[in-house]
Amino acid sequence: MNLVTIDDIRAAADRIAGAATRTPLLTCLWSDPDRPLWLKPENLQPIGAFKIRGAYNAIAKLTDEQRAKGVVAYSSGNHAQAVAYAAKMFGINAWIVVPKDTPQVKVDATRAHGAEVVLSEIGQREAVADEIVAERGAALIPPFDHPDVIAGQGTIGLEIIADLPDVDLVLVPVSGGGLISGVAAAIKALRPTAQVWAVEPELAADTAASLQAGELVSWSVDDRNRTIADGLRSQPSPLTFAHQQAFVDGIVTVSEDEIRETVALLAHKSNLVAEPSGAVATAGYLYRAKELPEGRTVAVVSGGNIDTDLLADLLSR
Amino acid sequence: MNLVTIDDIRAAADRIAGAATRTPLLTCLWSDPDRPLWLKPENLQPIGAFKIRGAYNAIAKLTDEQRAKGVVAYSSGNHAQAVAYAAKMFGINAWIVVPKDTPQVKVDATRAHGAEVVLSEIGQREAVADEIVAERGAALIPPFDHPDVIAGQGTIGLEIIADLPDVDLVLVPVSGGGLISGVAAAIKALRPTAQVWAVEPELAADTAASLQAGELVSWSVDDRNRTIADGLRSQPSPLTFAHQQAFVDGIVTVSEDEIRETVALLAHKSNLVAEPSGAVATAGYLYRAKELPEGRTVAVVSGGNIDTDLLADLLSR
Repeated sequence: MNLVTIDDIRAAADRIAGAATRTPLLTCLWSDPDRPLWLKPENLQPIGAFKIRGAYNAIAKLTDEQRAKGVVAYSSGNHAQAVAYAAKMFGINAWIVVPKDTPQVKVDATRAHGAEVVLSEIGQREAVADEIVAERGAALIPPFDHPDVIAGQGTIGLEIIADLPDVDLVLVPVSGGGLISGVAAAIKALRPTAQVWAVEPELAADTAASLQAGELVSWSVDDRNRTIADGLRSQPSPLTFAHQQAFVDGIVTVSEDEIRETVALLAHKSNLVAEPSGAVATAGYLYRAKELPEGRTVAVVSGGNIDTDLLADLLSR
Repeated sequence: MNLVTIDDIRAAADRIAGAATRTPLLTCLWSDPDRPLWLKPENLQPIGAFKIRGAYNAIAKLTDEQRAKGVVAYSSGNHAQAVAYAAKMFGINAWIVVPKDTPQVKVDATRAHGAEVVLSEIGQREAVADEIVAERGAALIPPFDHPDVIAGQGTIGLEIIADLPDVDLVLVPVSGGGLISGVAAAIKALRPTAQVWAVEPELAADTAASLQAGELVSWSVDDRNRTIADGLRSQPSPLTFAHQQAFVDGIVTVSEDEIRETVALLAHKSNLVAEPSGAVATAGYLYRAKELPEGRTVAVVSGGNIDTDLLADLLSR
């Protein structure tokens, strides 16, 4: 299987410049001096999550002719926002397929970017998206299972090395695996001695099980949906799992309470609003120190799209 | 009176590189397309506020001999944290004079940076600081009334122009005036057609009164202390007022409720935790559109050191 290369990621960086925000690394004065921590705040991207990098890169790589026919995504989360927003920047149509039971607030957010929201029966999202592809000739932009999406997310790794060339450890949340695949490919190409570790919710730890087994292990949707980290309920594809087997050094899992407490800590001590999925890597730093390598550490804060009531609740505990 | 020059500010930028975070401009998809908004998130600095820029520059400009004797500041807020943290980076002593009634949490935060906290009688902070200067030969680092502090804060203006060369309007909170003096000096030197406007709480609007009168108008401490924006309760000095008269195009004031609502909006829509003082410029953008010039606008989010209970309360309204 062909893995994404550092050249793919560098080309993606050129494409997304100006569309995605070049986020800084944030010093954490509250971190352990023996393992100083920097945060990579992807919650500050225009749509509030790293997903804009991969979505924009994938759309930018289409031919003019392909792109003119529009793009399709099936997602009700950050990837949907990313595809809708990137399509708007290119001035093309976007169809976002979401299940009928999607909260109105998410439907409205997607429409606000100018995308057309297509409601589907539960469990029929992919089939409906395929119909649009067939009828319209539109291009499907998958949330993680595509080299151009992985290369786009990998630009985060480029930026980490540019800002902290002697980084020792990079912590990345894992779900479908597009983010960690790209980041790890970049880090290992530019600084092979740095380690890249995945962090996953205990209640959706299919990737941990898969890496331990050496093959993809499937968890039921119901099991994965138990975690509060609603952006981390997907499973790797063969493509993203191959990247993880090649480039990822280890994985730790964190509890629901640890995720909740980390959302509050990031707001309190680093002035960042993170969604639960976005707090998972930092939770790994805080609560799994004994399992992780020491040294100069970066945690990716992957997104910040949290319901205000939930955030207020987590801050009040 | 000599005003800070663009050369002073450029030299400050070289000094603070690596100590202060190079913050990006954040795109706000929720802003009015006719007057698109970018945020300059200084709440993401290591100590949670822009003050690190001026404090670090002032200490870096001391001679080795001066610096070895240590530094003194009187403040219980963000400037105290900034001086303590910058002194720690230089490996020198810092004495921070605070009134006896300062909350223990602020005393502890200052001590955590390695500074010595000196408790004074209420209203005696300056006198006690002067004693330390006389006895120890330490250098006093004032919160705003010093050209090196102003030049340090001005590096924010350099960065705004570098990232958004065609900016039309920059909104800056005002209190003692160190921040807006530096930012306005930089903006007017690099892009004279851009406007710089101050934003001030209605309940501490001494600067608005002064600019209107054409001379410094004093408000009582009790009056200024009414605002929830506890970082904006100081008054300009002759030095900072001269910069404002030279470089600032206008001023608007915002209400307490507008400040509170903007704290919640910044958390909800831009994933930033801002303290009330840090939300004031964005409140001007949101609630004073008719009084402000149109065009490409930047609002400086000056700090994020808000009590977690207050933040939870503002998010729950």
